[in-house]
Amino acid sequence: MVLSACWPRSRRSARCTGPGYETFAPIEVVNWTNEEGSRFTPAMIASGVFGGAFTRDWAAARADRAGVTFGDALDQIGYRGTERCGEHPLSAFFEVHIEQGPYLEAENKDIGVVTGVQAIRWYEATFVGQDSHAGTTPMHRRRDALRGAARLVEDINRIALAHPGSVGTVGLLEVKPGSPNVIPGEVFLTIDVRDPSSDTLDRIEADVMRAAEAIGAALGLEVAVKTIINQPAVHFDAQCIASVRAAAAAAGLSTKDLMSGAGHDAAYVARVAPTTMIFVPCKDGISHNEAEYSSKEQCAAGAQVLLQAVLDYDRKLAEKLG
Amino acid sequence: MVLSACWPRSRRSARCTGPGYETFAPIEVVNWTNEEGSRFTPAMIASGVFGGAFTRDWAAARADRAGVTFGDALDQIGYRGTERCGEHPLSAFFEVHIEQGPYLEAENKDIGVVTGVQAIRWYEATFVGQDSHAGTTPMHRRRDALRGAARLVEDINRIALAHPGSVGTVGLLEVKPGSPNVIPGEVFLTIDVRDPSSDTLDRIEADVMRAAEAIGAALGLEVAVKTIINQPAVHFDAQCIASVRAAAAAAGLSTKDLMSGAGHDAAYVARVAPTTMIFVPCKDGISHNEAEYSSKEQCAAGAQVLLQAVLDYDRKLAEKLG
Repeated sequence: MVLSACWPRSRRSARCTGPGYETFAPIEVVNWTNEEGSRFTPAMIASGVFGGAFTRDWAAARADRAGVTFGDALDQIGYRGTERCGEHPLSAFFEVHIEQGPYLEAENKDIGVVTGVQAIRWYEATFVGQDSHAGTTPMHRRRDALRGAARLVEDINRIALAHPGSVGTVGLLEVKPGSPNVIPGEVFLTIDVRDPSSDTLDRIEADVMRAAEAIGAALGLEVAVKTIINQPAVHFDAQCIASVRAAAAAAGLSTKDLMSGAGHDAAYVARVAPTTMIFVPCKDGISHNEAEYSSKEQCAAGAQVLLQAVLDYDRKLAEKLG
Repeated sequence: MVLSACWPRSRRSARCTGPGYETFAPIEVVNWTNEEGSRFTPAMIASGVFGGAFTRDWAAARADRAGVTFGDALDQIGYRGTERCGEHPLSAFFEVHIEQGPYLEAENKDIGVVTGVQAIRWYEATFVGQDSHAGTTPMHRRRDALRGAARLVEDINRIALAHPGSVGTVGLLEVKPGSPNVIPGEVFLTIDVRDPSSDTLDRIEADVMRAAEAIGAALGLEVAVKTIINQPAVHFDAQCIASVRAAAAAAGLSTKDLMSGAGHDAAYVARVAPTTMIFVPCKDGISHNEAEYSSKEQCAAGAQVLLQAVLDYDRKLAEKLG
């Protein structure tokens, strides 16, 4: 869920009023299209256009697996719109989300005060050896690409552990030719590393590259590692964060400061507007899984902090501009 | 290529005669259907029926990926035949093949005297952990199935090296869900281990099972290892082997005794007839690959030994039965 306090002099919006309360700036609720990226890649394509990471034309041309473009799909449901991106400025942006991690639950905290989003890098690595017969090729004559990949999987884990707070994952790994009686001649894999600090990620990257080269040399394999995503750390707006803290304090809710491990629309919007996020705990830190769960009470606490943070920010805006 | 000396009183065959030479037993050339198993699995299905490893009905019912059965495909080309399997006995069977390994080339030997086929076992192993978000799941909270698989890949290598003469291979490995930003919750892999001695394979199997369990316990993963193929070592017939040695000696060719690392039709035929094989060297031990190569001279030496071994065996047969 997302609430944005719109720019107070926006042409199309009206201030929010309720019984006994009128905001200084209009308030809007935003549902960014294609946040998950399940049908059209990349994920968060709409907030990416809004934040200037992608052009509108490039986004509209993304196609699903059936060849339907993102633009055509929006036309079909009447949601492409005509407004030029950026015509509708925001004075601030607040996003509430489940933590997708275990820290709030483990420390029994009600609210995560999200100070930013970790830096993320993705790499594609390929090991090339020689596919050959599993029964007739002696152990000392092998150039087994899977052994290289296996060592790198363990090294990624070791490297991430050596930098507390960072994470490293091999999530995709493909073996060629992929037959029980053939020694693998080629293995392709992806590496996802994240850390709150881009500087730490630089050191992790150097360690990963050194490890891959050492493995290639030790096992007689060709190895190539290519960067495919490099997103620097995002640091959210200090005033927005202060409004979240004030809102939680007013509601008597406990808080913990966190950097988000996952990407979010807020990370793109932060490029063009003061932004922050509010996390609520989730069971066992599990997300993107049927077991994902936050209680009604946890969600209600998040909604309460979201509302009060927006109102707090709106009052400060009124003091500054009113 | 295969030459079989047929049973001398076979109804349908005639003794071979040439300029100045008449064999005691008829000689036949056999091309076993579906040796590679590329279209219909398993491989060596025809020699498997002949050797009694499979029934004829079971073999005929095997289907290719389009659903066409092996029996129907044989009917379509008029090759199903009507003779009952076993009606056509062999007094001996000789098969010539490239080594598919590096030993003859490395030792500069002309002919491999094949004393048998290594024992082969295949296993399917599955590691199950918990798929979760690569960005938000701390390293110490992970149950990464790919880490288990990676350790087992290295352990299989270590175990095979600890038993000189044995080989161990992970050729197929599949990661689920297989997304760069998801920690793998499940990994499936195959293990192929071979050794000249079934007893040694028993010890290797025990080591593999112990390693898999230790990995599961260390990483908090469920692990299951299931045997899917268990072929004991095949020991070829001493008289057939003696005929190969005699043939090579008569032709002035150098020899080396070998156990075959790969499976061959001869391993099935050996169940019902005196059998052996003759290997010729191949370049760099490479096979099942476009780079597979044996020179004309190497192939000619193999053919010469095949012919002379069959004639040698035929003369001994004549002495015994004639």
